[in-house]
Amino acid sequence: MNQISAVLFDLDGVITDTAEFHYQAWQRLADELGIPFDRAANEQFRGVSRADCLRLLLGGTPRDDVDDLLERKNSYYVGLLSRLTPQDILPGAAELMDELRQAGIKTAIGSVSKNTPAVLAGLGLDHAFDAVVDGTMVTHSKPDPEVFLTAARLLGVAPGLCLVVEDATAGVDAGLAGNMWTLGIGPAERVGHAHARLDSLDGATWDVITARLEEGAWAIRRLAPPTPDAHLETIFTTGNGHLGVRGTTLEPRTGESAASFMHAVWDDMPVSRTELANLPRWWGMDLWVNGVRLNATAPGQSMAAWSLDLKTGTLSRTLRWAADADTEVVVCDERCPSLDDPHLALVGLTLTVTRGTADVRLRSGVDVHVDNLGLRHWELTGQSAHTTGVRLQARTRATGIAVAVATAFSTEPAGHPSACDADGQPAVLTATLLAAGETLSARTVVALASTAEVDDPAATVAGCLTAAGGWDGLVAANATAWTAAWDAMDVAVDGDPAAQLAIRYALFQLVIAAPRLADSSVGAKTLSGFGYRHHIFWDTEIFMLPVFTYTQPDLARRMLAYRWHRLPGARRKASAGGYAGARFPWESAGTGDEVCPTWVEDAANPAELIRIWTGDLQLHLNADIAYAVMQFWRATGDDEFMRTQGAEVILDTATNWASVVKLEADGFYHIRDAMGPDEFHEHVDDNAFTLGLAAWHLRAAATVLTWLDATAPADATRLRTGLGLDQAAAAHWADVAGHLARPRIRGGVVEQHAGYFDLADVDVALARDPARTQSMQQIFGLAPVQRTQYIKQPDVLMLAYLLPDMFPDDAFMANYRFYDPRTDHELGSSLGPAISAVIACRAGDAAAAYAHFTRAAGADLSDARNNACDGIHGASAGGVWQAVVFGFAGLRADDRGWTTDPHLPGHWTRLRFRFTWRGERHEVTLPAA
Amino acid sequence: MNQISAVLFDLDGVITDTAEFHYQAWQRLADELGIPFDRAANEQFRGVSRADCLRLLLGGTPRDDVDDLLERKNSYYVGLLSRLTPQDILPGAAELMDELRQAGIKTAIGSVSKNTPAVLAGLGLDHAFDAVVDGTMVTHSKPDPEVFLTAARLLGVAPGLCLVVEDATAGVDAGLAGNMWTLGIGPAERVGHAHARLDSLDGATWDVITARLEEGAWAIRRLAPPTPDAHLETIFTTGNGHLGVRGTTLEPRTGESAASFMHAVWDDMPVSRTELANLPRWWGMDLWVNGVRLNATAPGQSMAAWSLDLKTGTLSRTLRWAADADTEVVVCDERCPSLDDPHLALVGLTLTVTRGTADVRLRSGVDVHVDNLGLRHWELTGQSAHTTGVRLQARTRATGIAVAVATAFSTEPAGHPSACDADGQPAVLTATLLAAGETLSARTVVALASTAEVDDPAATVAGCLTAAGGWDGLVAANATAWTAAWDAMDVAVDGDPAAQLAIRYALFQLVIAAPRLADSSVGAKTLSGFGYRHHIFWDTEIFMLPVFTYTQPDLARRMLAYRWHRLPGARRKASAGGYAGARFPWESAGTGDEVCPTWVEDAANPAELIRIWTGDLQLHLNADIAYAVMQFWRATGDDEFMRTQGAEVILDTATNWASVVKLEADGFYHIRDAMGPDEFHEHVDDNAFTLGLAAWHLRAAATVLTWLDATAPADATRLRTGLGLDQAAAAHWADVAGHLARPRIRGGVVEQHAGYFDLADVDVALARDPARTQSMQQIFGLAPVQRTQYIKQPDVLMLAYLLPDMFPDDAFMANYRFYDPRTDHELGSSLGPAISAVIACRAGDAAAAYAHFTRAAGADLSDARNNACDGIHGASAGGVWQAVVFGFAGLRADDRGWTTDPHLPGHWTRLRFRFTWRGERHEVTLPAA
Repeated sequence: MNQISAVLFDLDGVITDTAEFHYQAWQRLADELGIPFDRAANEQFRGVSRADCLRLLLGGTPRDDVDDLLERKNSYYVGLLSRLTPQDILPGAAELMDELRQAGIKTAIGSVSKNTPAVLAGLGLDHAFDAVVDGTMVTHSKPDPEVFLTAARLLGVAPGLCLVVEDATAGVDAGLAGNMWTLGIGPAERVGHAHARLDSLDGATWDVITARLEEGAWAIRRLAPPTPDAHLETIFTTGNGHLGVRGTTLEPRTGESAASFMHAVWDDMPVSRTELANLPRWWGMDLWVNGVRLNATAPGQSMAAWSLDLKTGTLSRTLRWAADADTEVVVCDERCPSLDDPHLALVGLTLTVTRGTADVRLRSGVDVHVDNLGLRHWELTGQSAHTTGVRLQARTRATGIAVAVATAFSTEPAGHPSACDADGQPAVLTATLLAAGETLSARTVVALASTAEVDDPAATVAGCLTAAGGWDGLVAANATAWTAAWDAMDVAVDGDPAAQLAIRYALFQLVIAAPRLADSSVGAKTLSGFGYRHHIFWDTEIFMLPVFTYTQPDLARRMLAYRWHRLPGARRKASAGGYAGARFPWESAGTGDEVCPTWVEDAANPAELIRIWTGDLQLHLNADIAYAVMQFWRATGDDEFMRTQGAEVILDTATNWASVVKLEADGFYHIRDAMGPDEFHEHVDDNAFTLGLAAWHLRAAATVLTWLDATAPADATRLRTGLGLDQAAAAHWADVAGHLARPRIRGGVVEQHAGYFDLADVDVALARDPARTQSMQQIFGLAPVQRTQYIKQPDVLMLAYLLPDMFPDDAFMANYRFYDPRTDHELGSSLGPAISAVIACRAGDAAAAYAHFTRAAGADLSDARNNACDGIHGASAGGVWQAVVFGFAGLRADDRGWTTDPHLPGHWTRLRFRFTWRGERHEVTLPAA
Repeated sequence: MNQISAVLFDLDGVITDTAEFHYQAWQRLADELGIPFDRAANEQFRGVSRADCLRLLLGGTPRDDVDDLLERKNSYYVGLLSRLTPQDILPGAAELMDELRQAGIKTAIGSVSKNTPAVLAGLGLDHAFDAVVDGTMVTHSKPDPEVFLTAARLLGVAPGLCLVVEDATAGVDAGLAGNMWTLGIGPAERVGHAHARLDSLDGATWDVITARLEEGAWAIRRLAPPTPDAHLETIFTTGNGHLGVRGTTLEPRTGESAASFMHAVWDDMPVSRTELANLPRWWGMDLWVNGVRLNATAPGQSMAAWSLDLKTGTLSRTLRWAADADTEVVVCDERCPSLDDPHLALVGLTLTVTRGTADVRLRSGVDVHVDNLGLRHWELTGQSAHTTGVRLQARTRATGIAVAVATAFSTEPAGHPSACDADGQPAVLTATLLAAGETLSARTVVALASTAEVDDPAATVAGCLTAAGGWDGLVAANATAWTAAWDAMDVAVDGDPAAQLAIRYALFQLVIAAPRLADSSVGAKTLSGFGYRHHIFWDTEIFMLPVFTYTQPDLARRMLAYRWHRLPGARRKASAGGYAGARFPWESAGTGDEVCPTWVEDAANPAELIRIWTGDLQLHLNADIAYAVMQFWRATGDDEFMRTQGAEVILDTATNWASVVKLEADGFYHIRDAMGPDEFHEHVDDNAFTLGLAAWHLRAAATVLTWLDATAPADATRLRTGLGLDQAAAAHWADVAGHLARPRIRGGVVEQHAGYFDLADVDVALARDPARTQSMQQIFGLAPVQRTQYIKQPDVLMLAYLLPDMFPDDAFMANYRFYDPRTDHELGSSLGPAISAVIACRAGDAAAAYAHFTRAAGADLSDARNNACDGIHGASAGGVWQAVVFGFAGLRADDRGWTTDPHLPGHWTRLRFRFTWRGERHEVTLPAA
């Protein structure tokens, strides 16, 4: 999995325990200054520079004698250090160093302590490391990565091939910031966010460590305070293709953005017309210890260690809680929507008393009193509470979609459960008295279904619970289902742990969002938040779908079938605009009618409204969907799909194109008053992207029709009759495809739309200013930016991406050089960066490609755009896979087979992925062996 | 109280019990036809015509032999009738007829039975009545009023002076529809909606009956099925000047529009910007009998008899409920926000077991899970449940206004209460086993407060509960407070029971809406619904305030103080528009900033938005408020108010006028692009109403300034300095007032605005078509109606109403004849009819005046505009009082004293009311004795 070539050790707390000497020195200084200090306060000093420790100790009080105090503390410490001997090397450290040396893996010390040489000397390790970086060699304290990056440089090893071994939160953070693998030594609350964790190095052989790291490349770990963080809630979203649930705590917390959504459970709302109704809170469990309720403000909580295990889709949290002065418990809870049976989800909690005696009360139930950012969608239709679980049925207020939830609840030890049937929140209550060292474990199996996918949800959930085996069986079945999914789609990267995790994370978020039960598709923000109200855009077909088409075509087919089922809505939209055929709505939801808001409030001036034109003008969506259908057909060879659904989509949308274009006096068909992918320019004529895809679409439709005539004459007749496709129609398509308006070309550069070349040129320096915090649209304003050549995302280059053969290499490079600097990569559309990475690969611009890739990969995990709180960037996630597979690997597959054209980032030592082509799975390893 | 001159008796069930013979005849027929029938089914036949009974019996099965069946049933019945003797007269009926005869009160029989003569003959009553109307003389069955109206005509007595005595629901309905007094004989569930009710006529002397009717003129009664009715919920709104609560049931019912609002508890919302947050459900009580929960779909419920006692502000409901086959209970509940201590409200329930044994479970609590038409405003901040009551604290999400609710709960017998503390819905539960004949009574005293009126609401509600005496004491204190209110404001009408009730009802709804604790005013829809989101318009000052100014000036002063406190908001609006002084917002709420929505969705075409211009263009509001201040000052002589608050309002709004007008080349000041009261015409120049009130306002301001200079020089200096009122300003005011643009006058008619005379004339027949169901604006469309002379409500005539001296009688009549037919009285503004009634009185048009009055009086009780579901029409309610006092009575009061100029409707035999003038209460009786 990894080819780690160097291990960078922290010194204090890892190799030896000078931490005790530090504590004693600080304690002596604090006593002399009359400042209260104890071992608990000292915990904060782990991994922090001496000067910063002093600042913490002084608590902000300014003093003139800071240097003197630092010197005094150090002298106490150095005095203690003289007592060090090789006996003070911590258990396991010496053995590990021996093993690494024999294996040819380099080692270094990375410590901010200026006393490092003295410590090493005392321990007899003066010459044990290939490099030593100490506080005298760096200017930034951890969590800045300087100390480790310096060590890597001295060793001549790429950061992505280094492993940092650390016992402090700030030290792990420094390793992560340096893009290195990290191994935390100590409790999860302190170093649980490292890729791997061990209690100590005692017994830590290299095999043990690499096994742990292997697991660590499959988990997103964060430490979080008790107060809610909407970004973490988004990135810890779990799901199973039936429902998604944000990473909020089991217990409700003030200020959280808790939400769970189920595919196709749409209800009406103002402005954005429709959204998925936030499900009755089904994952909740409330906890009281000695009468104190656990919530954001409950005293005595530690940082909680969160971990999302991508391998099994399980989110867990561990926290230590001193509920009162005499009592401490450790709570570990987990949540896992089952990928094996998407109607099921598992919620578990284990509580161990570490100090005192705990009267533990648990409440497990379902709560219908939820809302979508204030708007309530549910009408309660039934409920019951029993000692073994609860039932709840509710119905969306406007659309009348019914949802049923049922739970089976048990604890070990069994306790004395009682039922509480308060309106809208049926629950089971248990009370258990635990002594120190005793453990309570609680398990809730939840079943959820809706009339969007079954006839009788109450019967379905009851049946699911009855059919469900025991807890362990459910856990195993889920793991098996995930193994199959990863077998199909995993991408392994060596030499870049951050990229490795980000790619897997993107795949994870996509696969939990792809519908497995309901007739639906994936919204722009998946099922992970309220952003874009779950509406489905071209993001799905152009950005997300390729992952599925190439790895899990059954899921891709469901998502394309969603469009086919909505042809009636698309025909309504076409005919409402006075056009023929079908025009898919820019924003699609339940019925397939347009749900793009027409007007939204101007945040800067609430009395005024902004007209949203995308639903009116972005004509290219029809071709985007046709493109996805053709790509699916080519990749899968699924002729049955093409005959029964795909062809109808392609043909009726082609009919729409033929009625939208206007033949003008110049003999060409024009597309007036439209909008390409670049949303900085509305109401444009003859957008090159739109024209290019329209021509492609009309020709693809003709190809499909010819194929149908030849291979499925009955279907051909059905569609020709049903869609009115006579000879004249075919002739008209050919005429339009051949005589669409020709964009101006200047020095090989295709003009984005008529008049674009005449707009004000851009200030590249302004666009590339790293300190910029606003999009070019925000800087210039909605109307003025339209008069410039700044663009929000690739438009002509997007055309070159989708239809590369239209752009020979020379022409491609001319357009790349012209348009790339004009694109607001940083703060324009989140759809842009991943595709820009592929484009930059073709241009041979490796640095730009990796920068774009990093931007896309960080959209959610790093909250690069500061809006991940609204939900996962689904298109960016899908684009990350395309950047890796179509960009860095350069995969192209066609009737003659598949080829790669690798442009791996320099520090990637290996890339391995799988894809499915016409029913057969292929594995690619680069560089080729 | 009343001068009833005739009593119209139903026959069956009132004078004699032929109902038994009817039952036997129907039973025989049903048996012959093999149709299931019993006494219970027969209950439905009370008061229903024979043919309708047969239809019910056949249950919709078509038959050819209907006439034959009717004849058969009648022959069985007539056969039974031959057994009748004078002994079959029901107890008390003969005695009452004797007494009426001696008192000179006429009597008649009104029965739909064609066998009436035979029955009367059998009873020996052939000649006992002054008139007999039976089924042979009428074509419409009860509840059509034909039979009683015919009887009244035969007797020569006006319907308003007739009393109908009925034992059937449909019969009482017929009396009410005929605008007669009604006396129901039988249980409340059947005839509880009559003005008065007796179990039987046994012992019913005329004194007893008139005493009951006296009470009946103080109550709104309706029978209602278990399913919610939003209109009834509105009209059964109760309140106490602190909060209002819609007339929904104690138990939640699917489909209800439950709501309760407290003054000044504003929270943000989309589009309409702000609204009062629907309070946590505090009036709720849930009931289970033998495990069956009472709700809209619980089986075995009778029609419920609802009654709103205007004398004490108490809403009660009685229903009979067969919870299961063996058990029947009678439930009577009541709710009364206390007018004595507005922080308190009383909720009571009495349950008597009439059959079987009942395991009665009650839940009394508070529920925070409420919303405003789907939007949630509350964040729970604290709660607790005890066996004696609950506590709950919550905070509005955006504005952070805190509300506390506390309850004290008890039952008799005491039972075994337990506490249930489910999140957001703390409650007390009781379980009581009752045998037949036993009664359970439950009482909840609720206290509610908010930070909009006290610093620490939780402490306030706790204190209120502690200080509250026993239930009986609280009931008595509330009754005393109501007696004082009615002493001040009651209006008594003889000869028109419907008008009598409607006038009292209007006064009731106004007085419960007028704020007594918080710094607020009365919204257009009071505290009774979601309409207009509780925003405060000119409705308050021009339409509602006079009632208070003339009857309860302390409440009027609070409402004017609300405006004074919001001068900063008014100054913000003026300065945002580039003007000087203060401009009050067209829609006002918490801060005094404009909260009129700018855009609303077009219901007919949701993709398009309608720009709402009222907030931009209705400049006249400033003058409306100044008018109310001057009227208050004149009526009360409250100089202290004028010095401290009133003058500042009048002066700074005058400054605004002086900056809004534009001096043009013609030497006149114009008001361009504005809007008068007639909202069918937006963007008009020189609206006569606006010009007229502006001139009046500027002169009134000068008068106030002169008065201040003379009587309160310190205040004069303070305001002159603070508001920048130097000599130049005063001169400018005088110049503007003297040189405002002069509307065109044609044949004495003042042109409503520049160019109005040139608009398309109206089709009077279309406007007056009684079958019309759409306003002229809906018929023509928003833009086209602006090109016609149709107007939404009086505009020039409104000016004539407010400033009558501007219009000498000749000029007034010319304008009346021109504008009245152009006004959409029926479906234009609900503000129009009441004022049109006053205008028609001045015009001597008695029939029109009464028609307008009826339209205003029916806005809520009769749901004349089909929108009472959204809340009480506050302006119409205030207008009803003005129509009676300023119109029918013609009251005018000034420095020389008061006079009346009566124009009583012909059938009003007496009108009596009180008003307060400069601290002294006067009583007016008309016609004068």
